[in-house]
Amino acid sequence: MGPGPSDVHPRILSAMARPTIGHLDPAFVGMMDETKEALKYAFQTENELTMPVSAPGSAGMETCFANLVEPGDKVVICINGVFGMRMQENVTRFGGEAIIVNDDWGTAVSVDKVEQALKDNADAKILAFVHAETSTGASSDAQALCKIAHENDCITIVDAVTSLGGSELRVDEWEIDAIYSGTQKCLSAMPGISPVSFNERALTKVRNRKTPVTSWFLDLNLVMGYWGEGAKRTYHHTAPVNTLYGLHESLVMLTDEGLENAWARHQSNHEILRDGLEAMGINFLVDKADRLPQLNAVFIPEGVDDAQVRATLLNDYNLEIGAGLGAYAGKVWRIGLMGHSSRKENITLCLAALKETLGK
Amino acid sequence: MGPGPSDVHPRILSAMARPTIGHLDPAFVGMMDETKEALKYAFQTENELTMPVSAPGSAGMETCFANLVEPGDKVVICINGVFGMRMQENVTRFGGEAIIVNDDWGTAVSVDKVEQALKDNADAKILAFVHAETSTGASSDAQALCKIAHENDCITIVDAVTSLGGSELRVDEWEIDAIYSGTQKCLSAMPGISPVSFNERALTKVRNRKTPVTSWFLDLNLVMGYWGEGAKRTYHHTAPVNTLYGLHESLVMLTDEGLENAWARHQSNHEILRDGLEAMGINFLVDKADRLPQLNAVFIPEGVDDAQVRATLLNDYNLEIGAGLGAYAGKVWRIGLMGHSSRKENITLCLAALKETLGK
Repeated sequence: MGPGPSDVHPRILSAMARPTIGHLDPAFVGMMDETKEALKYAFQTENELTMPVSAPGSAGMETCFANLVEPGDKVVICINGVFGMRMQENVTRFGGEAIIVNDDWGTAVSVDKVEQALKDNADAKILAFVHAETSTGASSDAQALCKIAHENDCITIVDAVTSLGGSELRVDEWEIDAIYSGTQKCLSAMPGISPVSFNERALTKVRNRKTPVTSWFLDLNLVMGYWGEGAKRTYHHTAPVNTLYGLHESLVMLTDEGLENAWARHQSNHEILRDGLEAMGINFLVDKADRLPQLNAVFIPEGVDDAQVRATLLNDYNLEIGAGLGAYAGKVWRIGLMGHSSRKENITLCLAALKETLGK
Repeated sequence: MGPGPSDVHPRILSAMARPTIGHLDPAFVGMMDETKEALKYAFQTENELTMPVSAPGSAGMETCFANLVEPGDKVVICINGVFGMRMQENVTRFGGEAIIVNDDWGTAVSVDKVEQALKDNADAKILAFVHAETSTGASSDAQALCKIAHENDCITIVDAVTSLGGSELRVDEWEIDAIYSGTQKCLSAMPGISPVSFNERALTKVRNRKTPVTSWFLDLNLVMGYWGEGAKRTYHHTAPVNTLYGLHESLVMLTDEGLENAWARHQSNHEILRDGLEAMGINFLVDKADRLPQLNAVFIPEGVDDAQVRATLLNDYNLEIGAGLGAYAGKVWRIGLMGHSSRKENITLCLAALKETLGK
């Protein structure tokens, strides 16, 4: 019950252990096609370029920035936690100019501040923000932010590492242009690959680049050749075959459950955990309206030894909860209810173990 | 029996299906330490910075070039197959100047030509070459090339994707400065991560960079903080936990077998396959002296339909062999004898199936 990786379902673990076949084997290529289709469903998009990057979420992030940012591009970046800061690092390294919109950690991105920043920087090309901040558990209004970006001629890059499969996310309806996510949060697959999706507006910017993408490994012009339609596939790199078996299985399970049912399950389990924590006098970092159901950041009660409690939970109860990050290190715990981890027995154990450990 | 991924041993597949634990869990951190030690043994190095990059071999390659090449650096690149060309792509994208030494595909890199190129380019900073060309099955003299590089004040970047665990490779004795490899060839683990090792000479160049590394994900200054000594570990990205279980298990197996025994097994199995193929009148692309035991590139007999034979082997015998690449597409087959795939029963099946299919 940390901030990810979440528990991986036994069906998915078992899929990982299937014999490794060649990454150009027709059976594998068929599985790639199914994976693309299922990812489109999970993202709620018809984007043809929807696929997993063969590396962790950080590389999914880098795929978006490496392909979309050209030297000199102004990029408005919203920082309300750790992962916004990482976006800034990406932009700077690719030669872009980062315009920062700061919000307090634990709050949502302020749509008004973003609007002002876009008006102040009429030549900005990109707006980048985190939909679901894993470092704080705050959700931001992706639809409103994308609307404002487009009114100001910006394309959008959205971090959905923690939201995909766990809370409402509609890439096409919200007009998100480029998005990246992870597999080890609400999809409950193993870490190591990163689903991304790009719409035509984003791809047009990629195609019109004046400079080549710095990264050969992440260059979409090449990766697209490999993840393209059936017979035309061009070898680019060796796909992480077994990890893709796992992702495929997790997407089969998500499709079986139904995306909106998965969102509802995350929400109702969050409410049970919340009620139990609040009954113990433990309070949430994030205001109710902006709270992610899958990542519960709560204040550590006064006088409690953070590291000792987490060690006791891990050693005596086989239960992991996450530490705070940055300014909230030692001040909050982050309790994940993601994917397969989001179930009744975990909540009951977590609440009971916390009660015993805290002597409540 | 393609050019990789090779067959993954059932023990390794089974390790992949172990429950995913947190990437900061003390038990996982202990496994990371064991993995580093076992990789040092496999590479025959004492380099402290020896670890798997969390992405496929192409990203291991990019880790070396992204960290070592600065804009304007002259890099001498040896091209005798596909993967030398990919090195050139990397250098150019990172703003380096690539000086190319060409050798015919299927031959080893010419030490004399490299010496001349280094003398002609006294300001070159790096020599990069492929130790074991997966596209042709040619091995090059890494020790001699490194010696000449150092005599000319160059550091070396070596592609050992196909050699690690399959044929002689001694990083410290041969004074290789930066090296990358893959897991899905002679280690017989699943694709998706890439072992690398850097010595002090290489790290000094990284530390003295005037410009930041373009890639946040592959920046060794950050990755080292995560793969460093026990308690000091700093979160960088979410490690591909299950894939690392697999690599760990494969390294336990390599240590049990003994590295030199593994090299000898690859060699003796190659000789059995070679004798059988030559008895059928099938000839090798690479001269005997430069031939890799783990990757057997052979000419397709006159009048034989390449794609049809490979399809028959796959569909009727459940046996994959690799197609030729580049100039050798349609002209050669690449038969892998890598890691767990390098065993008697496979050779016997392959020879018998080829005989039946070719009507010999």
